[in-house]
Amino acid sequence: MYDLLLRQPFMSETGMQAIRAQALVAAMREVELALAAEQEARGLLPEGTVKALQTHLDDHAFDMQALAEETAKGGNAAIPFVKQAKAALPDELKRHFHKGATSQDIVDSALMLVLKPRLERCLSLLAQARTSGCTLMQTHRGTAMVGRTLMQQALPITFGAKVANWLWGLHQAERRLDNVVASGLYVQLGGAVGVHSGLDEHGLPLMDGLAARLGLNAPLLPWHTDRQPILALAGALDAVAAGADKIALDVSLLCQTEVGELSEPAEAGVGESSSMPHKRNPVACARIRAAARQVHGNAGIIANAAAQPLERGLGEWHAEWAPLVDSVLLLEGALETLTALLDGLEVHSEAMQRNLAVTGGAIMAEPAARVLVPAVGSDAAKRIARESSETARVQGRPYADVLLEHAEVAGKVDEATLRDAVRPELYIGSSLAQVERALNVLR
Amino acid sequence: MYDLLLRQPFMSETGMQAIRAQALVAAMREVELALAAEQEARGLLPEGTVKALQTHLDDHAFDMQALAEETAKGGNAAIPFVKQAKAALPDELKRHFHKGATSQDIVDSALMLVLKPRLERCLSLLAQARTSGCTLMQTHRGTAMVGRTLMQQALPITFGAKVANWLWGLHQAERRLDNVVASGLYVQLGGAVGVHSGLDEHGLPLMDGLAARLGLNAPLLPWHTDRQPILALAGALDAVAAGADKIALDVSLLCQTEVGELSEPAEAGVGESSSMPHKRNPVACARIRAAARQVHGNAGIIANAAAQPLERGLGEWHAEWAPLVDSVLLLEGALETLTALLDGLEVHSEAMQRNLAVTGGAIMAEPAARVLVPAVGSDAAKRIARESSETARVQGRPYADVLLEHAEVAGKVDEATLRDAVRPELYIGSSLAQVERALNVLR
Amino acid sequence: MYDLLLRQPFMSETGMQAIRAQALVAAMREVELALAAEQEARGLLPEGTVKALQTHLDDHAFDMQALAEETAKGGNAAIPFVKQAKAALPDELKRHFHKGATSQDIVDSALMLVLKPRLERCLSLLAQARTSGCTLMQTHRGTAMVGRTLMQQALPITFGAKVANWLWGLHQAERRLDNVVASGLYVQLGGAVGVHSGLDEHGLPLMDGLAARLGLNAPLLPWHTDRQPILALAGALDAVAAGADKIALDVSLLCQTEVGELSEPAEAGVGESSSMPHKRNPVACARIRAAARQVHGNAGIIANAAAQPLERGLGEWHAEWAPLVDSVLLLEGALETLTALLDGLEVHSEAMQRNLAVTGGAIMAEPAARVLVPAVGSDAAKRIARESSETARVQGRPYADVLLEHAEVAGKVDEATLRDAVRPELYIGSSLAQVERALNVLR
Amino acid sequence: MYDLLLRQPFMSETGMQAIRAQALVAAMREVELALAAEQEARGLLPEGTVKALQTHLDDHAFDMQALAEETAKGGNAAIPFVKQAKAALPDELKRHFHKGATSQDIVDSALMLVLKPRLERCLSLLAQARTSGCTLMQTHRGTAMVGRTLMQQALPITFGAKVANWLWGLHQAERRLDNVVASGLYVQLGGAVGVHSGLDEHGLPLMDGLAARLGLNAPLLPWHTDRQPILALAGALDAVAAGADKIALDVSLLCQTEVGELSEPAEAGVGESSSMPHKRNPVACARIRAAARQVHGNAGIIANAAAQPLERGLGEWHAEWAPLVDSVLLLEGALETLTALLDGLEVHSEAMQRNLAVTGGAIMAEPAARVLVPAVGSDAAKRIARESSETARVQGRPYADVLLEHAEVAGKVDEATLRDAVRPELYIGSSLAQVERALNVLR
Repeated sequence: MYDLLLRQPFMSETGMQAIRAQALVAAMREVELALAAEQEARGLLPEGTVKALQTHLDDHAFDMQALAEETAKGGNAAIPFVKQAKAALPDELKRHFHKGATSQDIVDSALMLVLKPRLERCLSLLAQARTSGCTLMQTHRGTAMVGRTLMQQALPITFGAKVANWLWGLHQAERRLDNVVASGLYVQLGGAVGVHSGLDEHGLPLMDGLAARLGLNAPLLPWHTDRQPILALAGALDAVAAGADKIALDVSLLCQTEVGELSEPAEAGVGESSSMPHKRNPVACARIRAAARQVHGNAGIIANAAAQPLERGLGEWHAEWAPLVDSVLLLEGALETLTALLDGLEVHSEAMQRNLAVTGGAIMAEPAARVLVPAVGSDAAKRIARESSETARVQGRPYADVLLEHAEVAGKVDEATLRDAVRPELYIGSSLAQVERALNVLR
Repeated sequence: MYDLLLRQPFMSETGMQAIRAQALVAAMREVELALAAEQEARGLLPEGTVKALQTHLDDHAFDMQALAEETAKGGNAAIPFVKQAKAALPDELKRHFHKGATSQDIVDSALMLVLKPRLERCLSLLAQARTSGCTLMQTHRGTAMVGRTLMQQALPITFGAKVANWLWGLHQAERRLDNVVASGLYVQLGGAVGVHSGLDEHGLPLMDGLAARLGLNAPLLPWHTDRQPILALAGALDAVAAGADKIALDVSLLCQTEVGELSEPAEAGVGESSSMPHKRNPVACARIRAAARQVHGNAGIIANAAAQPLERGLGEWHAEWAPLVDSVLLLEGALETLTALLDGLEVHSEAMQRNLAVTGGAIMAEPAARVLVPAVGSDAAKRIARESSETARVQGRPYADVLLEHAEVAGKVDEATLRDAVRPELYIGSSLAQVERALNVLR
Repeated sequence: MYDLLLRQPFMSETGMQAIRAQALVAAMREVELALAAEQEARGLLPEGTVKALQTHLDDHAFDMQALAEETAKGGNAAIPFVKQAKAALPDELKRHFHKGATSQDIVDSALMLVLKPRLERCLSLLAQARTSGCTLMQTHRGTAMVGRTLMQQALPITFGAKVANWLWGLHQAERRLDNVVASGLYVQLGGAVGVHSGLDEHGLPLMDGLAARLGLNAPLLPWHTDRQPILALAGALDAVAAGADKIALDVSLLCQTEVGELSEPAEAGVGESSSMPHKRNPVACARIRAAARQVHGNAGIIANAAAQPLERGLGEWHAEWAPLVDSVLLLEGALETLTALLDGLEVHSEAMQRNLAVTGGAIMAEPAARVLVPAVGSDAAKRIARESSETARVQGRPYADVLLEHAEVAGKVDEATLRDAVRPELYIGSSLAQVERALNVLR
Repeated sequence: MYDLLLRQPFMSETGMQAIRAQALVAAMREVELALAAEQEARGLLPEGTVKALQTHLDDHAFDMQALAEETAKGGNAAIPFVKQAKAALPDELKRHFHKGATSQDIVDSALMLVLKPRLERCLSLLAQARTSGCTLMQTHRGTAMVGRTLMQQALPITFGAKVANWLWGLHQAERRLDNVVASGLYVQLGGAVGVHSGLDEHGLPLMDGLAARLGLNAPLLPWHTDRQPILALAGALDAVAAGADKIALDVSLLCQTEVGELSEPAEAGVGESSSMPHKRNPVACARIRAAARQVHGNAGIIANAAAQPLERGLGEWHAEWAPLVDSVLLLEGALETLTALLDGLEVHSEAMQRNLAVTGGAIMAEPAARVLVPAVGSDAAKRIARESSETARVQGRPYADVLLEHAEVAGKVDEATLRDAVRPELYIGSSLAQVERALNVLR
């Protein structure tokens, strides 16, 4: 509740609805019943046990407040959950419930269950972002703009090529996430110390069967203190966040008043200032960037807790939960924002054109120098190109004119060649080819 | 809600009650009314304005759900808060509300207001921990135990000296936090771009006056994108977390079954295992360590967001909120746990005694060698001390006996001196003096 | 030089020899020459250019001190490198050198070149660790030891099962690293703003051809400000570090004097204390853990710098270099240490046996309770198992005896069944099956 | 050596010269000799011991390569240092050397010794930056420029006010660092397990006396596993880095080609591009930002290693060294760069003026609305101000004209008042007062 106004605005509302505490409890019940079902199927529980368990537990209303309080005492949510569930069962069923399982089996598996649909939604949002991005990319494959290095104007690119670069970055992260979702969301079942104590030779097959019932992957071994699966997930979330963050960073820079090449989609109530009526704040970018920063920090918490002692973490495991769930919900929120951003992004190609001319053409010094080299040599070419760009800027004259009149140049180069060489829209390198290459992979 | 079972168990219940979203709204109202009061006092608002504002706002029920939704759109909670508040005011009052302020003024100041009592509670818990610790320290000033370096038995210390070390570490962090609370919780008031636009020469005095009204410190200048105050706070929280974590780490190591020198306080329902009836898990330590890890990560988020662009952050500011509030609540929770832990810590001095003997006395090889040096020289002394410790361990005989019978030693050293030299409880160095020194400062 | 005693002791000596500054310069030269060769092959440079370049550059001694100083001024090493190289060329060759390339092309590609053999060495060390681990695992598949959760004795496992868990964790990370090395070490070639300015349609094929010549992967697009490749690499390094750290953490805990189940390999001069002759410090573990912590932090630096503005980072790119190279060398060092550790690890099965008995058998309370359930019901079974374990511990008697004499139990359970149930070495669950499963995958 | 081109360019050359490995060895010798001197003064060593030790050690050439190799084996530099030193001593002196000390005493104290002058240099650079900044601040106290929030033009400020904000932020960090340097650089002396084993009642006075001899602070207690002093230092370094980073971030944004309000000092060879002759890259900003990011990451490593087990870290201590020294040298480098940047910063007030006009005056919508409120009411005023700003921008006309002609406004407001209200240079709020306030504190 305390974070209604401070954290949740950056999170997916849909995601938050789906991962309420009740959903975690429902997932723990699902894990326990699937475990019982698998045990019954293998003759480890009397026939009819699962049906009986379901009868008592399906509509059972867990006392959420008590769960929360007892979670603090026991250290994890499965302990009071199992207690409350057993209390709801007749005596003869009690010992068939949670049989062979430990708290961490239930919590880890339930977490995977509640996170899986959120991660699938993230993947679907990423696909949406790809589609919107591909449209942008194609539309603006030839829209010239200035490329900027160290935030200084450098040489022309096209906006399509920039979008291709955004999307290819994001897609690499999407593939990491997809890979984890497809084959790395593991069921947990190891019993008290990870070796299926008491279940013996039934342990591993039970674990595999439970995975199949829950729609999760079966790990090679229980992973109580092998947190590589969590690390891989956290890393993939972090990569997607970085991919989204890169786009938001660029958009926010290109939205600057003085640059004005992009605007966030206009939406009533979005981006207003409480004190300045004229402003249109890039709130979508701010939200994505705020989320990404938190996801990075959470990944660090998880990495620093990845080495867990012996057969169960002593705080390390517990430290994973909130950062992991937060990161998923922050990322889902960031991707909702990103898809809307890419969908409605306003591209001001006239501003791009204007900015290409802002240095008086001096950004074309490199191609100009290339044309001069045969006439004056490499060093002189660079010097003249630099001097003339300064002259053009100071005198407010076209760069080509200044160059052509330069004492060392006049009469030594072909005018048309030089004039073309300093036209930005003709100097976009492989921009079109990059867009094409990207579309082949991303569409 | 989603974190009821995953994050909140590590947090202070009292703290969470106090920092509900409603409390943040109440704090924002408090800031706005105090601002109006200060303006009225300085003749910048008509007399009676504040009273009129209070009449309309004191019992106004803000629509929390709408606030949350609009916060997402505008990027911070003050924007919809001001809107809702103005909608509740008659037209003639609207322009007197939020006058000269910007969203960040309200959010930053309100955050300081809601955090201040939590931080004071942390300080009070730290004082409590100090008191409990001093008692422990004094009681066990002479209780010999083995000191362990790289987790190997090394030489004797006393448990009191260990507690002194714990508390002195924690106290250094307490002083940092105390310093921030006493003089670094600043009001924020800078207006749209931090220079009190429209308020002109009234700006700085208004800021100072507002601070006094709210019981916050007055900063030298508005600090919209100077996040040093937040960084100092986050750093102090991190330091306290580290101090608590050090204690929890040591306690958990000394609670290990094979060591058994300490036990966490026994409390019904705490530390039980869902599958193993015999266990008493050091859940307090696990909770403290889980909280500390998250606080470390949050500090990293805040540090990485500390450089904020120009006159307002673009995601950096927004990224501070949840980590900061989380850290405060996690720390308050960790300190509640820590005080209970220190209060009820069970010290098993007989186990300490037993462990001192576990190497057959070999941990006393250093003092033994010191006694041998005059007789056999430095290098031989070390060799003999080492060989004899091995012999003692393998043969299960007292170290002193083995040493005294060693061919190169026999007859060359005074028996009583050597026997005393290898008695751990006589070899506790400055332990007593350290306890005394610590008590002088900490009590 | 300043870190000869502070950082390098944790790094691979072999690795450090291989990544001297000279090696980076050699790699930059290799990149430039391969670029020229590819351009010559495509008719973009006159025939014989590469040969001429080689003649002048192959034995050219770069002024390393000047390179370092100029690197500071220009912001990266390629700028002065290109200057020095051009100065060494006759005028007619100058313009054929570094043609179409930008500094970042050279630095990124050269970094991949110098890191690749180090990463391959890491993979080879991981394979070695797997081999040693598999031997350990097989030898100790049935060696019973106590499993510990929250560092408390819980239930038996086998040491082989523990090693299987270690190795499976490490292997997941190995696969991530292998994947990056096999297909994610990309050449960089994009020119000034990433669109092959001036190279036009030759840009992408040149990039692909350059990759092939250098033995690097060809990216879909230039990746100047798409740092996903670096993020994936840093994440894989971090995962391997976490995998090694988990092993070192367990080993260090099991080496504790009071536990004594493992010892690090004995080696002259290793693990000695400057003041305590009797100690054998787990220095290998300390070194691995120290390295892993630094690798985690470096991964955080890289993640927080992953969103880079527009067409070139402004500090973000520069911030990657040292953390990335450090992480590789720290990891290579940690893996050297780890392989030696696994190779020579001393396993004290008698201590494992002793520790299994340390609670008077109370760790067997769970299986005992299982046997009691049919006779006395679930709740009573747990109560009796718990009470009796306490009695056994206090009275120093065998747990089975105490249980069999308990008033509520006597005569109600089969003695042999109960006695077997509380024999740890018979209660190892799926340990053997886990070892077998792991061997099938890891060997 | 490997980082000559990758890390060292961001570091202080002066600093690196001062913290060579030889300097660390010299510092360790200094610590040992001061310890002996203090012991001799207290009658714990025979008279003349120190003089004799000096005779043998002052010119002793330590074998640096052997030191490095043995450091890896033993885990820290003091172990082989003590060995080499003792080997250089005659037998009768050996036992007087390193008496009562442990490795960590020597390494921690030596580190403080080598870091202290670097930190003092950092403080001196901070003072220099303050001086340069104060000049800038005063010169530009009234230089109007636009304030930007979320990187959008908002309302006017003055450049002086911005500099005041920069410097006040940096100064808060400076005070933290100053505080640590003045009273938190502690000597370390605790012996094997931190209780001065064998030194008994001499322990604490020896520690205090050693501190005085070395010019370090005396801690309350030895701090082998109380890393609060390191945490406080790392936090202060991090804060200074954040303060410098904030300035570099703003400067780099204001250096953007399209903004052009600032330029980095022009210096031959600095900021050139290897491929684009026209560019002037903000390399100083890039270097500061690259350094700051690494310092943040290092602070995270240190915080995550702050809880160290029992009486000596097992990797945690070792993990501090390189990040700590790196951070100091990176910060010293960043501050060298920062002072040069502030010293030579080019301020383009004409560009500031130009940018104030870029929205057609729309940034003055807030003050315009204030003037309109009495005439048309609060809501209408805001609406009209917003509409008119759009009209002014689209039609390229002065904002005041558009407003005065607006149907709802015409004839209802005083023309001069409105015209003045929308003149940016008259709307600088408390900028002058802020500069004055800052100068009072910072000068």
